[in-house]
Amino acid sequence: MARVALDAMGGDHAPRAAVAGALLALAEFDRVHTLQLVGQTRVVQATLDELLAGEMAAHAAVRDRLAIVEAPDVIAMTDKPTVALRGKPQSSMVVGLRLQADGQSDAFVSAGNTGAQMAASAFVLGRHQGLARPAISTMFPTARKPVVVLDSGANVDCSAEELVQFARIGTVYAEDMLGRPNPTVGLLSIGEEPEKGNAAVKEAHQLLASTPGVNFLGNVEGRDIPVGHCDRGPIDVVVCDGFVGNVLLKFYEALAPTLMGMFARALGAEREALEQAFRELDYADHGGAPLLGVKGVSIISHGKSGPRAIKNAVGVAVRAVESRMSEHVGRRLAEATDLRVATDGAPTV
Amino acid sequence: MARVALDAMGGDHAPRAAVAGALLALAEFDRVHTLQLVGQTRVVQATLDELLAGEMAAHAAVRDRLAIVEAPDVIAMTDKPTVALRGKPQSSMVVGLRLQADGQSDAFVSAGNTGAQMAASAFVLGRHQGLARPAISTMFPTARKPVVVLDSGANVDCSAEELVQFARIGTVYAEDMLGRPNPTVGLLSIGEEPEKGNAAVKEAHQLLASTPGVNFLGNVEGRDIPVGHCDRGPIDVVVCDGFVGNVLLKFYEALAPTLMGMFARALGAEREALEQAFRELDYADHGGAPLLGVKGVSIISHGKSGPRAIKNAVGVAVRAVESRMSEHVGRRLAEATDLRVATDGAPTV
Repeated sequence: MARVALDAMGGDHAPRAAVAGALLALAEFDRVHTLQLVGQTRVVQATLDELLAGEMAAHAAVRDRLAIVEAPDVIAMTDKPTVALRGKPQSSMVVGLRLQADGQSDAFVSAGNTGAQMAASAFVLGRHQGLARPAISTMFPTARKPVVVLDSGANVDCSAEELVQFARIGTVYAEDMLGRPNPTVGLLSIGEEPEKGNAAVKEAHQLLASTPGVNFLGNVEGRDIPVGHCDRGPIDVVVCDGFVGNVLLKFYEALAPTLMGMFARALGAEREALEQAFRELDYADHGGAPLLGVKGVSIISHGKSGPRAIKNAVGVAVRAVESRMSEHVGRRLAEATDLRVATDGAPTV
Repeated sequence: MARVALDAMGGDHAPRAAVAGALLALAEFDRVHTLQLVGQTRVVQATLDELLAGEMAAHAAVRDRLAIVEAPDVIAMTDKPTVALRGKPQSSMVVGLRLQADGQSDAFVSAGNTGAQMAASAFVLGRHQGLARPAISTMFPTARKPVVVLDSGANVDCSAEELVQFARIGTVYAEDMLGRPNPTVGLLSIGEEPEKGNAAVKEAHQLLASTPGVNFLGNVEGRDIPVGHCDRGPIDVVVCDGFVGNVLLKFYEALAPTLMGMFARALGAEREALEQAFRELDYADHGGAPLLGVKGVSIISHGKSGPRAIKNAVGVAVRAVESRMSEHVGRRLAEATDLRVATDGAPTV
């Protein structure tokens, strides 16, 4: 069971999408003990009343598992993260994350300003030891099972050591969130050979080849991602710099509607079937992206999220809480630190 | 009119795909004056005889515009570029490119080892002044007109100055090869704002904002590419580091067959219509990718190229020759150098 705080004020369609998503989540996931809607009480209450009096009247039964938590400040999608944190100390993000720090909540979900959420999460929850910077992990639908890609945009100009950290925490994500034992990790590059890639990737390849606890597949290429498979077997986790990951993610997200438009012209009657197939590619189905590396659960949802995407993000939050992913990330990173210390101190071990 | 040298020994389906592609190109493009098949004469001749005696008998009339140029050494797809150049001085790549240096040919096309072709092109043809490293430009099909993406893999760890050079030469490509006047150039990043991106991209943004001759759109994101459009208008050229460009290109190439497989399951009778639509996404239709920045024409084709892809690459070569793209690249780069010198010397100009 999990208590999930949801940012009622964040996202392009807030507060309506957040409140409606909360009702959907409570109805679908009985593992949500309480859902805490964080925002301006008056606004949230009015939206809730309206939805329950109208189109979502059938969801009235879940009302008693819903709480509203007051947060007077609202962070805009265009606010600069640091300015937002400093100037709006009572924002739904800070208040929502603080519930976790205070032991009153288990997870936080927001479709709001991603930069502000990253900064607030690191600030309020703290980072796990042994990690330079938290990373965003996203799921890429493939012809096979989805592949976890990280970092998808939290960090640019990553060092080889950071790429190795992403491999470690991506491994935990695949184990805990996807239930994949001993997940394989590919390092995104421009060729299979260890000597292919930019400077950080080439160095990371060498490090990963001898990193315990990471089932390293070697380099994977852009073409392997849609297939979810490379010459050396199926891929569970793809590690890359947040610049590359973010470009790829946005490219992929934009492709489905673009291709749909192209095909719609070519197709007549079976358009319905095609739309159904495209739904598999819809990121909304895959919910939010956990920010990995903070001490707690912070789920980043797309700014465009509608109620269904919000509902699925809450599902991701529950899974993260129940699998104790954050704790496992911390332990895995601590092991790496211990190992390094041990190895440094006693090279014969 | 153009004389085009074609590497008969390079590519996964050589020599057959190259020879068949040569016949197709001669039949379709009357602007090809002569097509020079470069390779082991005995092998090329046998393949040609077999095709003309059999399935391509209808193409016998183009035979007199076809020449065979002997090149005893064969570079394998797996050869290391520098080793191949040093150890195989009479390869079809070196011989084919030297025809151009000697004034006997106007362009070179190969589906062989890309690294070897890049190295051989720079070595035999030389680089234009003012350019640090040549770049590969590829066409990405979009919902609108195709977009030119460069660099697609020749260079990793690019500096801001190199990104600016890519913007200059990509502009020439769009003008000469696509006939787009005053083409727009977007800098690939992870947000629209100038301060978004990695260190090289942020610096390049500042430089591009004041680069004469480049119609700079500002940053574009991954999501803008499939649409061929960003908030500030249509995009003709996308500039990025060769690492990002290569990952994106291979990802895109692999998507079409992957999605086709996913949709085929969802579709019945209209599969044929869908396959037709997918053909628009097929890189084979877009021919080869010119290596920009060398003094001459060197067209890089995909290793998997079949006859149709080879034929289209020859078409790209003809267009490059007739539009005098290489000369224009050289002039544009020289202007930049002059300008820099002039500006450095006389800051009030």
